[in-house]
Amino acid sequence: MSRLDTLIEALRCLPGVGPKSAQRMAYHLLQRDQPGAARLSAALSEALANLRHCERCNNFTEQAVCGRCADPRHDRSLLCVVEMPADLSVIEQTHAYPGLYYVLMGRLSPLDGIGPRELGLEKLIARASDGQVREVILATNFTNEGEATAHMIAELLDARGVRVSRISRGVPVGGELEHVDAGTVAQALIDRKSL
Amino acid sequence: MSRLDTLIEALRCLPGVGPKSAQRMAYHLLQRDQPGAARLSAALSEALANLRHCERCNNFTEQAVCGRCADPRHDRSLLCVVEMPADLSVIEQTHAYPGLYYVLMGRLSPLDGIGPRELGLEKLIARASDGQVREVILATNFTNEGEATAHMIAELLDARGVRVSRISRGVPVGGELEHVDAGTVAQALIDRKSL
Repeated sequence: MSRLDTLIEALRCLPGVGPKSAQRMAYHLLQRDQPGAARLSAALSEALANLRHCERCNNFTEQAVCGRCADPRHDRSLLCVVEMPADLSVIEQTHAYPGLYYVLMGRLSPLDGIGPRELGLEKLIARASDGQVREVILATNFTNEGEATAHMIAELLDARGVRVSRISRGVPVGGELEHVDAGTVAQALIDRKSL
Repeated sequence: MSRLDTLIEALRCLPGVGPKSAQRMAYHLLQRDQPGAARLSAALSEALANLRHCERCNNFTEQAVCGRCADPRHDRSLLCVVEMPADLSVIEQTHAYPGLYYVLMGRLSPLDGIGPRELGLEKLIARASDGQVREVILATNFTNEGEATAHMIAELLDARGVRVSRISRGVPVGGELEHVDAGTVAQALIDRKSL
């Protein structure tokens, strides 16, 4: 296999990129943006070598514990569970939440083979049982998968006597947190209900 | 800027990838496909270090002259000009063309600042004037840009006394060669007309 074919094949690891797109991307990079290709190659290997998951919140970080978890100004009694880092950013933008986060890096998705074990829920359980957390706020998406994930986490934490709440259904049903305006997300945080 | 942000930014050099897609791609690679990310990083730097343009046909190759141009079994009196390597593949699949190729690696596109100089047409002129080429067959797309490119090349070669033909308009107007079936492309090759 030529190095061009190897590159085209390698580009297909990107989500949503099929054979034609991969070919177009390879030609574009080689013909029109070699500096961009070099930056991408370096950024990938740098990220792989240096990014890890925060021991406490599971978000991407370059330290053992990320800056947010290490910052003593946040309320350590509140733990908000989100699917992805982008969801965390949306909640931060509301300035309506004083606590800490746990980032699942996904959601339950039986069809894709992602169950509680693959999602690493035991890490969340351990985190929520640290003695400081008094309430876990579930802020997974209001999609079917996000709802199933919230219910599963609620059951697991309930069995361990941890108080659990769910952000209110101010977020449109079927919608994804990332695409909702900050005002609606703020309302959903305020209206959270105990489970 | 964190290494994660650097990676998201670097992914935006890919054509058609905006901020949201880049973010999704970065999370996917880091979370679900680190081996794929490592392969992509290596494939990019390998391709950048080793791929160059064939001295004769301008296609990507790892040698000074590519295998096709070096192969003495092809008819050196025919030179077919295509926009992209994918177009060359389509013509090869027809098994209807015995000659050699010249790959423009693009097309005239004044809006994107790609004129005759940026397209390197002087390299094509030199190639077509090697004394062996008796006919240049223009097989650029039948889009506005492809047609303009064909006309420009025909004028330049005409002025130098090189015989020029255009594949026939069997390819649907507005269509792109890459997406047409081999039979139609074969017909268009056979019906080529002198310009």
